[in-house]
Amino acid sequence: MTPLVSIVGKSGIGKTTLVEKLVRELKARGLRVAVVKHHAHATPIDPPGKDSWRFAEAGADAVVVSSPAEVARFERVARELTLAEIAARLENVDLILTEGFKREPAPKIEVSRVERGTELVARVDELIAVVSDHPIALPLPRFDLDDAPGVAAFLCERLGL
Amino acid sequence: MTPLVSIVGKSGIGKTTLVEKLVRELKARGLRVAVVKHHAHATPIDPPGKDSWRFAEAGADAVVVSSPAEVARFERVARELTLAEIAARLENVDLILTEGFKREPAPKIEVSRVERGTELVARVDELIAVVSDHPIALPLPRFDLDDAPGVAAFLCERLGL
Repeated sequence: MTPLVSIVGKSGIGKTTLVEKLVRELKARGLRVAVVKHHAHATPIDPPGKDSWRFAEAGADAVVVSSPAEVARFERVARELTLAEIAARLENVDLILTEGFKREPAPKIEVSRVERGTELVARVDELIAVVSDHPIALPLPRFDLDDAPGVAAFLCERLGL
Repeated sequence: MTPLVSIVGKSGIGKTTLVEKLVRELKARGLRVAVVKHHAHATPIDPPGKDSWRFAEAGADAVVVSSPAEVARFERVARELTLAEIAARLENVDLILTEGFKREPAPKIEVSRVERGTELVARVDELIAVVSDHPIALPLPRFDLDDAPGVAAFLCERLGL
């Protein structure tokens, strides 16, 4: 089972930016990293007008777009997949980071900024660290908002990577 | 092994439109259909600026975007996957249609229009039918350009679907 850690926090708090920086840090350490992101909207993930969207609109159950550098696969699902289902399909990576998925059971790092309030959205028993611009009253590692290298080092140590 | 048929022909000849119509016809028959499309350009499949693109740019080896209706997965590859490799990962479909991939070994249907010349791009020994606005001098089924229902019926009979 590939280790999976969720980056959670309030909307617009900076989760995407932290995930992006963590990917760069972890890749610099030679690790293979996957990112899972939630798309809550009813709008299609693939933008309208593209051929892949046309095939999906026509009812295709799966659309694969293949290039020399990447392969994209769009699949219709009857219900949203669980993180466990998604993780089971992600082979050949050392670590899976998710943006969001705060309700799914997984170790979590919460991003918090004082201007949005210091209360946390994650369950304390699932939190493994906090990334914030304010002190926290929890016996957990805390990193500054710009300390992606520190978070990456913590993840590697914690997960034995 | 899921049956796979490639829709081939010159650039701009109408392959996407035929594939789109075939998907609708085959879905109306209750079949599960996947479409594989080639993306030759060096540009990313996912449009710049979206979060999934940001993660890929940051170096993520795989990015998954999950919604209640679909799941999209973008994977970095060291070389373009073969159709066989792509097909091996497509489970739970009855038929795989590809747009293009004329050099890959697979049964093919060629789309041809007289205004672009009547010579065919597919190897004759791989062709199973032609969709054209001109007669062909081959002992193969030929369908008119707007006869997607006829092509779909032919595919189902030929593949035992």
